Amino acid sequence: LPDSAPKHPVIAIHMPEPWGAFFCEHLSKKLPDINFRSWDTSGCLDEISYVLAVQPAEGDLNKLPNLKAIIVIGAGADHVLCLKNLPDVPIARLPQPDMRQRMTEYILLHVLRIHRQQQQYDKQQDEKTWKMLFPQPTATERNIVILGAGYLGRHAAVALKNIGFQVSLWSRRSSDLEGIKSFHGGKQLQQALSKAEILISLLPLTPQTDKLLSTEALSCLPKGAAIINASRGGIVDDDALLRSLDTEHISAAVLDAFTIEPLPSDHPYWEHPNVTITPHCASAATPEAVAPILYETVAKFENNQSPDFLVSRTAGY
Amino acid sequence: LPDSAPKHPVIAIHMPEPWGAFFCEHLSKKLPDINFRSWDTSGCLDEISYVLAVQPAEGDLNKLPNLKAIIVIGAGADHVLCLKNLPDVPIARLPQPDMRQRMTEYILLHVLRIHRQQQQYDKQQDEKTWKMLFPQPTATERNIVILGAGYLGRHAAVALKNIGFQVSLWSRRSSDLEGIKSFHGGKQLQQALSKAEILISLLPLTPQTDKLLSTEALSCLPKGAAIINASRGGIVDDDALLRSLDTEHISAAVLDAFTIEPLPSDHPYWEHPNVTITPHCASAATPEAVAPILYETVAKFENNQSPDFLVSRTAGY
Repeated sequence: LPDSAPKHPVIAIHMPEPWGAFFCEHLSKKLPDINFRSWDTSGCLDEISYVLAVQPAEGDLNKLPNLKAIIVIGAGADHVLCLKNLPDVPIARLPQPDMRQRMTEYILLHVLRIHRQQQQYDKQQDEKTWKMLFPQPTATERNIVILGAGYLGRHAAVALKNIGFQVSLWSRRSSDLEGIKSFHGGKQLQQALSKAEILISLLPLTPQTDKLLSTEALSCLPKGAAIINASRGGIVDDDALLRSLDTEHISAAVLDAFTIEPLPSDHPYWEHPNVTITPHCASAATPEAVAPILYETVAKFENNQSPDFLVSRTAGY
Repeated sequence: LPDSAPKHPVIAIHMPEPWGAFFCEHLSKKLPDINFRSWDTSGCLDEISYVLAVQPAEGDLNKLPNLKAIIVIGAGADHVLCLKNLPDVPIARLPQPDMRQRMTEYILLHVLRIHRQQQQYDKQQDEKTWKMLFPQPTATERNIVILGAGYLGRHAAVALKNIGFQVSLWSRRSSDLEGIKSFHGGKQLQQALSKAEILISLLPLTPQTDKLLSTEALSCLPKGAAIINASRGGIVDDDALLRSLDTEHISAAVLDAFTIEPLPSDHPYWEHPNVTITPHCASAATPEAVAPILYETVAKFENNQSPDFLVSRTAGY
């Protein structure tokens, strides 16, 4: 931690309850040098220097005359960047090892579940059918493509490679990881998709990635491909995905993020036999894991330095 | 491969159909120096030098007057060692990377599925319930114990450790793997079990391990522990496990091996809500993967050398 520590700057926690109160309590214990308070617009707003935000309502951040910076707690900044009249202050993200650990666990689980045909085995158990499924390739014969080569994508890629999978990464800019094939830019997207037996999205939601997984993109995938979306619902064109599932061009989709959350109870995803739904639980930050990087980030701002993970308003992440 | 190659020794393949014919066809193509034939007692039996066996019937091996060695294709030799009047010839196993790769994939899948509470999420999807499950520890906070520190157990242990799990191994004799706690012998079994939030059996079935997971052993596990048995059904006392599942001392069991296979359709495991059944598919050998080590093993026998993986009749594996 920096030598010069925060001396009680005020951070307002703008998270849905019960998480807001939970984070406020635990962060206060962990970081006594910082004055945390739950979001409450009836309080003294000019004391607030920072907001720790998930999905602030339109106008909320504009009520803070002395706001120095916005700190987003999840992996993506899209919920803040989409605000009208966003205050002209820096926006920082808090990537930390616990977040990518959890995300990688989720990715490995669902890749292996698809790869080893576990849902078919579950169905067989329901029918009391004893039958080995063939063919069963090994991980070394299976091509996985990850969209997004950031803090989360790179970690998941290495973990998948360690298990033996053939892993490729696609991202806006070129990335370089030993033993992992890298594609970049719009021109190489089709090429990357065409080899994805299992496609994973860990992309940030930006104007460029909005509905990136369109009818056209999905048609580039090999027949029978599976999709795992653990980033943002907006990456996927839901109607296109449902059509691809119904024609069995896509064999399975595992979705942790949706355009509207909680996913409305009448959404066709819920009952689709080849869709797995999880409630945005792939990688949930904990106060304990966030505390050190939050402290470091605030300390840098307080010392007029630039923290390591600033969001670019142009790039959108 | 050894310089001096097999010159058409005859290997009889004693496997259930359709696997026998499948292996015969593919091994014949891969290894033209060896004369493979499917098991057929009406043929000329004195030409047969080797048997590649899964589960030979009582007396079958005694019909071969010139048998030089028995070669078992799976990980365990129990199906051969249990035979009465077993011919007094060496018994070789064929452990190879493909086998442990497949087993490790199976272990990782089911450990992660238990660890990340995926079956509960599946139930929630059936009920259209959107709810994050707490608490959700990370792999780094989860204790896994593997019984069996052989070719399969050691590989799975390293893979689990690489993902971040706390891994311990227990085996008859002491083993040593960096970063992995090792327990050994009967005296340390209780100690190993007492920390196993997820217990994995990769043990060979021997007189010492028969029903090792008894009522007493299961009671040593922490409340809510889960079990994965990917070795032999005989390791588990089925009645004891069912009782532990019903009292919820054991929260879940994933079983790939059973005392009787296929698992009889009236067995209570099939419909138990907390039991996952797979049809002995965790690690199935393929002719392609077996061919090199089979060739090497036969070549050693033909050259009067000892192959690397001889079964000890005393140890039972």
